[in-house]
Amino acid sequence: MHSIEEIRELFTAYLNQESFQSEPQNLYEPNNYFLQIGGKRLRPCLLILATEIFCGKTEDALSAALAIEYFHNFTLIHDDVMDKAPMRRGFTTIHEKYNLNTAILSGDVLMIKACEYLAKVNPIYFKTIFDIYTKTAIEVCEGQQYDMDFETQQIVSHSDYIEMIRLKTAVLLAAAMKIGAILGHAKQEDAELLYSYAENLGIAFQIQDDILDCYGDENLVGKQVGGDIIQNKKTLLLIHALEAEKVIESNVLENVLKTTHTHNREKVEAVLAVFTQHQTKEFAIQKRDYYVQQSILALEKINLQESEKQVLFKLVDYLVMRTY
Amino acid sequence: MHSIEEIRELFTAYLNQESFQSEPQNLYEPNNYFLQIGGKRLRPCLLILATEIFCGKTEDALSAALAIEYFHNFTLIHDDVMDKAPMRRGFTTIHEKYNLNTAILSGDVLMIKACEYLAKVNPIYFKTIFDIYTKTAIEVCEGQQYDMDFETQQIVSHSDYIEMIRLKTAVLLAAAMKIGAILGHAKQEDAELLYSYAENLGIAFQIQDDILDCYGDENLVGKQVGGDIIQNKKTLLLIHALEAEKVIESNVLENVLKTTHTHNREKVEAVLAVFTQHQTKEFAIQKRDYYVQQSILALEKINLQESEKQVLFKLVDYLVMRTY
Repeated sequence: MHSIEEIRELFTAYLNQESFQSEPQNLYEPNNYFLQIGGKRLRPCLLILATEIFCGKTEDALSAALAIEYFHNFTLIHDDVMDKAPMRRGFTTIHEKYNLNTAILSGDVLMIKACEYLAKVNPIYFKTIFDIYTKTAIEVCEGQQYDMDFETQQIVSHSDYIEMIRLKTAVLLAAAMKIGAILGHAKQEDAELLYSYAENLGIAFQIQDDILDCYGDENLVGKQVGGDIIQNKKTLLLIHALEAEKVIESNVLENVLKTTHTHNREKVEAVLAVFTQHQTKEFAIQKRDYYVQQSILALEKINLQESEKQVLFKLVDYLVMRTY
Repeated sequence: MHSIEEIRELFTAYLNQESFQSEPQNLYEPNNYFLQIGGKRLRPCLLILATEIFCGKTEDALSAALAIEYFHNFTLIHDDVMDKAPMRRGFTTIHEKYNLNTAILSGDVLMIKACEYLAKVNPIYFKTIFDIYTKTAIEVCEGQQYDMDFETQQIVSHSDYIEMIRLKTAVLLAAAMKIGAILGHAKQEDAELLYSYAENLGIAFQIQDDILDCYGDENLVGKQVGGDIIQNKKTLLLIHALEAEKVIESNVLENVLKTTHTHNREKVEAVLAVFTQHQTKEFAIQKRDYYVQQSILALEKINLQESEKQVLFKLVDYLVMRTY
């Protein structure tokens, strides 16, 4: 079995080998650019890891891994348009570097290419895997819609928020691992448990992101702490503090959010003070740990050797119990 | 066998029955709106017709027909954004009625729903049909890219133009009929011939559109004649006339296109005068009839009873030899 780093190398080599060479260039070149920006390649690596854990062959998982990476990048390209984001991973986004139409159409064709690569899997598993894929892809769109809806929605409950991050982030991680397990000839029951493991892990992963934005070490996280606060982004922490204020009929936080601050630092400190008052950090940690626990419960039930399970236990630390 | 009108009724009933009821509403409601705008439902009807012609069951073709209609509408929603079109079939386009983000994301989910419905076909044909679908969907995106590229491209040859309309319009009609034939248990050879029939017919159909824009009867076409000319749209006719001018080193047409006219009528008449000089109409008719001939050649080779072939012969008249 390969390490995650080895899997990433293998996958990247495959991705590069499959880079688009077709015409029209204006359609495919932007996708080559965007795919080269990189990122952690988390989803394809998890897919391949799942195949290997069930003793499947790495090469049997490559095309599905690429399909998932294409799909993920398609969502990023279109999300960047919807969020008007100028940068992604330190590089100019497609709609900024090229234009809106390129971002739409290159994204579209990347999504169809994802389908094409999915169809290269072992034919006996194709229909099963395809059904997981379409279900998941629909959920990811629904998650993105809820995320946009929440921006203008006055009240968002923390459970609505968790459902949103489940759809927007967790289900694709979970589907990647389930598909990987199936391609490794795992039993259906084990594939379902691995899905549950990764789904809960994905939720915990996103909550940890929210926590680190407020309480991370700037030197480790590599970006300004409080970025979400400055943008009034409805994270689990902000939602919790707003819920807590509602109970005691306070509107300190609401006023802080409405105020125009001369220094961002002031705003961040004012919001963090409210978080401290309501033990918001503790609430978020408790939620995160609940999903980590659910993840581990699923993992323990999977019919695997202890050595393979250890890899998956370590993944929990790698993805969630991180400080950056 | 049902008539085209009966098939359209059957299909519309199925489409209505399957209308999206899921949450989030902001994601699905725009698609219900757009799908209700209607149109001729040409692609799904041709798919079902192909199934019936090969004595397949109508109900076996419905989900694939809906998949093709969803895919087609997804392309329309995104094309309308790219073309900045405010209206479609007399109704407000999604990006105008809602906003850009809704047009992008609702389009995306509609495309994935297309995949979902495609997966409901007879399992023995799923992989074959899916491969046709992805190949075609990619080609349609490529066609749209060429169409956009041509807008800013100084010189476009008439053969490049025909390749563009083949990709943008014809292949989806052809894929619809091929998929329908397969679901009707047609032999591979016959399915390929039906593809060729519909592909050539699709090209002829689009050329006829270009001809009618210049030479149609305003009362029959239902819109102002010369719309393409007013917009400097690179149709087969404009491309031919530009090619002809290049040969004789004239730039009359180029100057007309550059001039700002107080009345659109003047511009249309000036362009039509150049078309007459170069026998552009005759050229377009000749091209159209060439593709009709190719279509009929393929049709004649299909292993079908004369009565079934007659339906397909009539379709040529219905789609191409129309005056509106």
